[in-house]
Amino acid sequence: MTDPLLVEVLRGGMLESRHRGAVAVVDPEGAKVLAVGDVARPVFPRSAVKPLQALPLVESGAADRYALSDEELALACASHSGETAHVEGVTRMLAKAGLDGSALRCGAHWPLSQAAAFALAQRAGAPSALHNNCSGKHAGFLCAACAMGVDHADYWRPAHKVQREVRAVLENLSGAVLADPAIDGCSVPTWAIPLENLARAYAKFATGRGLSRQRADAAVRLRAACAAAPWYVAGSGRFGTEIMQIFGARALVKTGAEGMFCGALPELGFGIAVKCDDGAGRACEAIMAALIARFLPLADHERAALSRFLNPTLRNWNGLSVGALRVTEALA
Amino acid sequence: MTDPLLVEVLRGGMLESRHRGAVAVVDPEGAKVLAVGDVARPVFPRSAVKPLQALPLVESGAADRYALSDEELALACASHSGETAHVEGVTRMLAKAGLDGSALRCGAHWPLSQAAAFALAQRAGAPSALHNNCSGKHAGFLCAACAMGVDHADYWRPAHKVQREVRAVLENLSGAVLADPAIDGCSVPTWAIPLENLARAYAKFATGRGLSRQRADAAVRLRAACAAAPWYVAGSGRFGTEIMQIFGARALVKTGAEGMFCGALPELGFGIAVKCDDGAGRACEAIMAALIARFLPLADHERAALSRFLNPTLRNWNGLSVGALRVTEALA
Repeated sequence: MTDPLLVEVLRGGMLESRHRGAVAVVDPEGAKVLAVGDVARPVFPRSAVKPLQALPLVESGAADRYALSDEELALACASHSGETAHVEGVTRMLAKAGLDGSALRCGAHWPLSQAAAFALAQRAGAPSALHNNCSGKHAGFLCAACAMGVDHADYWRPAHKVQREVRAVLENLSGAVLADPAIDGCSVPTWAIPLENLARAYAKFATGRGLSRQRADAAVRLRAACAAAPWYVAGSGRFGTEIMQIFGARALVKTGAEGMFCGALPELGFGIAVKCDDGAGRACEAIMAALIARFLPLADHERAALSRFLNPTLRNWNGLSVGALRVTEALA
Repeated sequence: MTDPLLVEVLRGGMLESRHRGAVAVVDPEGAKVLAVGDVARPVFPRSAVKPLQALPLVESGAADRYALSDEELALACASHSGETAHVEGVTRMLAKAGLDGSALRCGAHWPLSQAAAFALAQRAGAPSALHNNCSGKHAGFLCAACAMGVDHADYWRPAHKVQREVRAVLENLSGAVLADPAIDGCSVPTWAIPLENLARAYAKFATGRGLSRQRADAAVRLRAACAAAPWYVAGSGRFGTEIMQIFGARALVKTGAEGMFCGALPELGFGIAVKCDDGAGRACEAIMAALIARFLPLADHERAALSRFLNPTLRNWNGLSVGALRVTEALA
């Protein structure tokens, strides 16, 4: 099945590039509100399910035991930019469990934030695992392992208790039976899940329906943390942070590598999952903005704030307007 | 028309992302050797035609008048990484015409090279137009304007004599009639040209057939400059530089923004033009490597050197093999 065109990139009014993909929006009863493209095909959700991967952190009692703040819980759900307060927050999470950055197994990369990368290059010359955009998720796994009283050394391996818990959570929320995982960029497992099941998982995460009381409470706490501290879920100038700053608890959005985006609109009980076939993040952001504009009742100031994400103008190095992104009628 | 799948991105053996596009390979007589996807659709070639845009620099007599070296002519054809010797070379080109970086109208951006960007941030805190990957092309336009004896101030505008010459060259080589241009990332015009015509342009550039003696000689000189100084066409660790370091004058390859790649295999007289529909550079590089492997007779050491570009392994931040790129049977 060929997925439809979802986003067009225009230059001077002419089509220059185009992105295909699939979109699933599911209501609290699990019914499809919107299904565009092949929503039954399993996709690797990558970082787009970090908020779900953080459920064992709360359910294990680690969040209480280590008195994790909203900022720290948001970091456990984050693909952060490696800015100073992100790194400090992850360091604090680890310290609460008696650990430091040496326990992280996510690998090192330069901060996603260019300003943070430049500052780090000037100061230290090289990044550490703390700067990895996934370090908050890994710190969450480590806190969970410590709270569970298990050896934390292999916390990233599929056979470790923490990852087995994550797998069980993903099966419970998505309703999908998961096969053997592939390896994510930060070395933890990533399980392929059909897009419609990912949307279902976020609908449950948004509403708690069909979940145990404990799991539903954990979801409420994580959603509240992301809404209270959206800067810790991404970072300065990032799409996800700005959307959650506009909408607060009304919209949870989470990016993943290779063109993944998931989200939830809790007041509607909707879960959302987007896969851009070619892996383009720019297309996902325009699609998520279009879905919010389509489904969420918007006040005038919210619509105004959202508008620059809907059909963004492309500018060149001199600031000249050279084109635009446009979401196609497939999503209208 | 839906272009075929050309490159698949695998994770753990499963399809994660996929790139569609079109490929045209044209022989010296202008006949299509290979046509995959919609090769009649006009595309913006962006930087993939910089070597062709440099023809007026040579034909105007500027290259002789200013005694431009191979390195400097390669910079005129380049999307360079903003490394020190790139910036020094562009500065030298401008000085030969009595100008400096203040004449450039390409806009400023941080060097594409991360190491160069970090070093610049430490040293100066901000990039200039000299660091723009297009600064060599712009210096070439400025040298041409000075050699033509025209005011250089508006050298980037479509109505300027230099850009009118560029347009005439592109029409002559491609055989296409060009409509009004769009604006490129560096503010010069970019004209939409059907992919098969871009391939034809590179076949003429590779062989001189159908060109005036003066234009054919200019093409020989620019091709020789790129083959002699491929580092100046891109930069350290870049695909184009490494390919031309392997093959010398046997393969000219030039990247462009939004999934464009052009090239020539002069011993076969073939011109090549590739457009990845979604704008992905990673797909173009795998496709170009596959086309070279398919058409160019390879010595064992050349085949060995090319192999890592053909089906590159994807590694994560810990160096674990997590997947691969794979060119599809559409190009086999």
